[in-house]
Amino acid sequence: MNPAEIHHVPHIGTLPAGPLGTIADVHGVTVGHCTLDKGAVQTGVTVIRPHDGDPFLGKVPAAAAVINGFGKSVGLVQVEELGTLETPIALTNTFGVAAVAQAQIRAAVRANPRIGREWSTVNPLVFECNDGYLNDIQALAVTEQHFDAAYAAAGADVASGSVGAGRGMSCFDLKGGIGNASRVASAAGRSYTVGALVLANFGRLPMLTIDGTPLGRMLAERAATAATAVSAPLSPTKPEQGSIIMIVATDAPLGARQLKRLSMRAAAGLARTGSVYGHGSGDIALAFSTAYSVPHGADFVTLPPLLADERLDPVFRACADSVEQAILDALWRAASVTGRDGHRRLSLRDSVPDLAQLLQSTP
Amino acid sequence: MNPAEIHHVPHIGTLPAGPLGTIADVHGVTVGHCTLDKGAVQTGVTVIRPHDGDPFLGKVPAAAAVINGFGKSVGLVQVEELGTLETPIALTNTFGVAAVAQAQIRAAVRANPRIGREWSTVNPLVFECNDGYLNDIQALAVTEQHFDAAYAAAGADVASGSVGAGRGMSCFDLKGGIGNASRVASAAGRSYTVGALVLANFGRLPMLTIDGTPLGRMLAERAATAATAVSAPLSPTKPEQGSIIMIVATDAPLGARQLKRLSMRAAAGLARTGSVYGHGSGDIALAFSTAYSVPHGADFVTLPPLLADERLDPVFRACADSVEQAILDALWRAASVTGRDGHRRLSLRDSVPDLAQLLQSTP
Amino acid sequence: MNPAEIHHVPHIGTLPAGPLGTIADVHGVTVGHCTLDKGAVQTGVTVIRPHDGDPFLGKVPAAAAVINGFGKSVGLVQVEELGTLETPIALTNTFGVAAVAQAQIRAAVRANPRIGREWSTVNPLVFECNDGYLNDIQALAVTEQHFDAAYAAAGADVASGSVGAGRGMSCFDLKGGIGNASRVASAAGRSYTVGALVLANFGRLPMLTIDGTPLGRMLAERAATAATAVSAPLSPTKPEQGSIIMIVATDAPLGARQLKRLSMRAAAGLARTGSVYGHGSGDIALAFSTAYSVPHGADFVTLPPLLADERLDPVFRACADSVEQAILDALWRAASVTGRDGHRRLSLRDSVPDLAQLLQSTP
Amino acid sequence: MNPAEIHHVPHIGTLPAGPLGTIADVHGVTVGHCTLDKGAVQTGVTVIRPHDGDPFLGKVPAAAAVINGFGKSVGLVQVEELGTLETPIALTNTFGVAAVAQAQIRAAVRANPRIGREWSTVNPLVFECNDGYLNDIQALAVTEQHFDAAYAAAGADVASGSVGAGRGMSCFDLKGGIGNASRVASAAGRSYTVGALVLANFGRLPMLTIDGTPLGRMLAERAATAATAVSAPLSPTKPEQGSIIMIVATDAPLGARQLKRLSMRAAAGLARTGSVYGHGSGDIALAFSTAYSVPHGADFVTLPPLLADERLDPVFRACADSVEQAILDALWRAASVTGRDGHRRLSLRDSVPDLAQLLQSTP
Repeated sequence: MNPAEIHHVPHIGTLPAGPLGTIADVHGVTVGHCTLDKGAVQTGVTVIRPHDGDPFLGKVPAAAAVINGFGKSVGLVQVEELGTLETPIALTNTFGVAAVAQAQIRAAVRANPRIGREWSTVNPLVFECNDGYLNDIQALAVTEQHFDAAYAAAGADVASGSVGAGRGMSCFDLKGGIGNASRVASAAGRSYTVGALVLANFGRLPMLTIDGTPLGRMLAERAATAATAVSAPLSPTKPEQGSIIMIVATDAPLGARQLKRLSMRAAAGLARTGSVYGHGSGDIALAFSTAYSVPHGADFVTLPPLLADERLDPVFRACADSVEQAILDALWRAASVTGRDGHRRLSLRDSVPDLAQLLQSTP
Repeated sequence: MNPAEIHHVPHIGTLPAGPLGTIADVHGVTVGHCTLDKGAVQTGVTVIRPHDGDPFLGKVPAAAAVINGFGKSVGLVQVEELGTLETPIALTNTFGVAAVAQAQIRAAVRANPRIGREWSTVNPLVFECNDGYLNDIQALAVTEQHFDAAYAAAGADVASGSVGAGRGMSCFDLKGGIGNASRVASAAGRSYTVGALVLANFGRLPMLTIDGTPLGRMLAERAATAATAVSAPLSPTKPEQGSIIMIVATDAPLGARQLKRLSMRAAAGLARTGSVYGHGSGDIALAFSTAYSVPHGADFVTLPPLLADERLDPVFRACADSVEQAILDALWRAASVTGRDGHRRLSLRDSVPDLAQLLQSTP
Repeated sequence: MNPAEIHHVPHIGTLPAGPLGTIADVHGVTVGHCTLDKGAVQTGVTVIRPHDGDPFLGKVPAAAAVINGFGKSVGLVQVEELGTLETPIALTNTFGVAAVAQAQIRAAVRANPRIGREWSTVNPLVFECNDGYLNDIQALAVTEQHFDAAYAAAGADVASGSVGAGRGMSCFDLKGGIGNASRVASAAGRSYTVGALVLANFGRLPMLTIDGTPLGRMLAERAATAATAVSAPLSPTKPEQGSIIMIVATDAPLGARQLKRLSMRAAAGLARTGSVYGHGSGDIALAFSTAYSVPHGADFVTLPPLLADERLDPVFRACADSVEQAILDALWRAASVTGRDGHRRLSLRDSVPDLAQLLQSTP
Repeated sequence: MNPAEIHHVPHIGTLPAGPLGTIADVHGVTVGHCTLDKGAVQTGVTVIRPHDGDPFLGKVPAAAAVINGFGKSVGLVQVEELGTLETPIALTNTFGVAAVAQAQIRAAVRANPRIGREWSTVNPLVFECNDGYLNDIQALAVTEQHFDAAYAAAGADVASGSVGAGRGMSCFDLKGGIGNASRVASAAGRSYTVGALVLANFGRLPMLTIDGTPLGRMLAERAATAATAVSAPLSPTKPEQGSIIMIVATDAPLGARQLKRLSMRAAAGLARTGSVYGHGSGDIALAFSTAYSVPHGADFVTLPPLLADERLDPVFRACADSVEQAILDALWRAASVTGRDGHRRLSLRDSVPDLAQLLQSTP
């Protein structure tokens, strides 16, 4: 088995990827991880900075689509009302949200001491998935310092896999975590980049679909007749307790209403991997644009010419393809992890040694 | 070419279909078509009756998901507020909505002369797609009588293809129209049926995906090197002007909030056929339950025990699979049609004579 | 009784009205009525043109708030998705919606024959209230010609009262109908106008509140001890079957997301007249801006600098005050009307001869 | 000045109050406060328990209306999706949300150690207002223990005023805080109670309206000619930075969709006090029913007969009246407070010594 071959993730769709193949292909976006991996604590924090300035002073246009709202993310009420985000985007485990939100507040006040005084307060934006299978989530191990560390580590070199908030996540009964992808699309005569970063923690194995190939079903059929390396249950009867957070960045000049439309297209990419947005899966997408920012306290907001809605189709496709690709990226990059109570999630490559061969058997 | 072979539509997913393979597998649901096919007028009306009683007196729990709101359907404001529908569901072309809504009102008043007098008014529910490529939509050919005819024709023997509202519809640059499917799912120890009827009028050919096989891309690649029977443009650059209406029926006892969740899962089935919910495509799903009805004018509403949300996953899957299957059904059943100005849409079978062979080349 | 005194409607709030005191104070907005008043037919159509150009070619930014969705308006699905309106706004009775929508389509196609051909279709925007108490709504008397007549009559001289769509409407068991008002507010150092046109058809008399004075309760108490000129029932036990449509125009440069926020403030003005958004009352507000338009078919949309959200409070106040004032305007201007089956609605002035005295008894 | 006279809060509307005049008139609902009042720290936590059992095991039907989403509450995404709440409702200051959410999680895990293990996670529900004018919000003084203390203190004897989360809140430039009220309404031949608890922290003085009397305007006019005891600025030009949280309880048997409708009626009560839902005011209402609960992990949910939507008008009115009354209750009960940097908010009674006289001058 040639590792390089295994790493050859199928390319989703026909649009080209950006040079990095991560969300950082959208110029100015940086990502940092803080990973906790001691014994039963297998979790972390991931921070996405939409630009290298102060996000409170230069608020970024953004909107979210709640595809299935079984989730505990914070900050979306205000994003829906005002169409901007004013902190970095943070990802962590479900029970780490409070600590990370607190850290976001503290960081914002540190940078702008008028927050909570002459100025209004700040809206921390924190998303989460439940990594309780691998991680001792009841330990509440995530602290404010872990946000600070992830923030400090932010850069354009973005890792995927069992890192940061993705450390303890499971996906299709395999090891999930952080995934990245990007696409370049042409619209209205210009070229735009769409990047996606997902925190993938959803799905049961029989659903898994790789670029149209029903790999999960194939594995289930194989398992029905023989022992395999797959330790995970193959029955889809147990409900999902997962979730996926899909962060979509673009340099296309879009308003918040258009970004809401864009975020909804993450649902298409997600569905193509086999998800039907299970009851217990908090499936939430947030899209933001780096084409401009809204200054705090201004009287008027000057926008660049916005890409017309009628020209959005290529950008929509780039979003769906990036999200699907980013989910595959998470599966391909995530290393196997052993966590609390001996729970273990095998990586896709460890679980399916003949993966390349299985996928090559389809066009 | 063996027609039987061509008619062998791939079976989506692992859940079994109901005995009819149509929305009428949900007991009590009936469908009627009225087809207009004279020269440049290629359009029609389709009516779905949720039960054989008076829907105003026995209102049906229902909810909708607007996946992409580029659409002119009527009735959804009240469905969202009250969680019921009180007329049959009607489908037609975009410019036929008004005539059909008028006919719905007239029929309701005929059945219940107190409507608009002592009682409040009635909320007609009419969905639409734009069949303007084949149909002379500007002729406003649909009249109130066509609704009445479709209503009168309603039965459990449900036709698919280029019939009723589906007469003039296009899908993936091929002939689209009405599609049907059903699935039987087990939840909480009981068996429930989910049925879907779609009015499929969306997509560009290069996107077309059949049970995971990127048929559209395969055809595009073939077309790039040789002349084919496909007359439609293969470039995905022209935006969609389509739409899809997805009507989902179930006998599972669900409340309106749960039906809204169910309707959202239509988006998953739609995505798996290649759609990214294009800008110009009005993609709307409506789900209703036949497990009970809400009597007009009652003081209290007695519901059966409702299936718990935690048990919904199999029903969600049945919805996504039914919708994907129903779209394939539309493509497989629709006959080629020539309409206004010599415009012609080939059926999938006419367009791709070696379809079975192409699909068999994949597992 | 001095008629002039009665016409002295209380001025709501502290912001000044525009010179006309109608929605036409927002420059470019015009209104036309077509009134049907023959015997049992007491109804009509009102058309609001956001500018004097073609609204399909120059789409107007707009958004709606559905405060209570017991309503049959058409067009809101697309307004929510795209944030623009592309036809004039039409108001009529509940069963006239279809004819008026048809007329909107026909007018749009007449002006732009490419609609439904090369171009996509058009989204007619029609709002309604149920005037069935006075009007023989089952007669379906409104036809396409009535829309055309109202459209042709549009001008800056805007009538209120029992005219156009307001002909048969009731409000607080009194004669309701069309009401107008405007306010001028200062925000970010500039002066902006907000205008409101309401179709007022809601409320039971005991709720009626005039600028804080509980007139309805005062009248109810008086009626409890003596015979009065009020023929309407004073018990609030019968549920509302009314509705109110609130159209809000402004010249402030706002995006669709901001217009949605603005439209929500109509709910505040409505509440102050005594409404609690009754179950059977379709309470819908739509706000649009005349500060710019979105050209059909453009690649990019250039917006003027938008008023910042933090500066919106005076505009919000202007909206609430305009809507409250417009409801009073409808009550003050509407003439008594006798309609079907001898049903009669007295105007406020005919019903409460000592109105000025009653209101003067409070500060 | 007779204190008893001042305490005579005007009775809003014509429906009677319950025996306690608090949210605890809805049987089973209890409330606890934890108040922090040391120097610059003037804040606290308030906990509302919907019943005396475990809310995770017996989830309460609930829904929210976001009237203006400038707010940082947590938990609403899941409430919207699932229509239930599974923790007590907690209120605190904006920067205390994280600590209180953490405490909610810890308490839920303590009670149900399977949360985050075999079971899914738990959705803490925490609302907030910004008390930064009186409270040193940057001190992040609220800790998990304060939630525990408020929870332990919960009982049916509910205090209003400058207590719990209300300690540091301002309302109409006066001292705000916790307010309570209840109403008994008759619907479908039965009697139902609606109770409201508000955290009132919104509004500028010139807007203040007491049962229709424009007290704020009267005070502003008086202030324009003479010195008064009111220290607060009377100009409405400075934008609101407030918020109001409105918790509505009822024993009426309603589903989540109906509770969403009910929560929206809080907006009517709020508007009648002078609010136009200012840009910077997070105005959020949540309604829940105590008529039944949804057991965790059940296959089916058995509901009592639900009150029909057509019978909701009296309950809607009870909601609007309770919320308006509860806001007055907060103003009447709140004691003056001095907080950080010498900031001081006078109570209404301290600020307007001749309040009773001013209000008596109107009918």
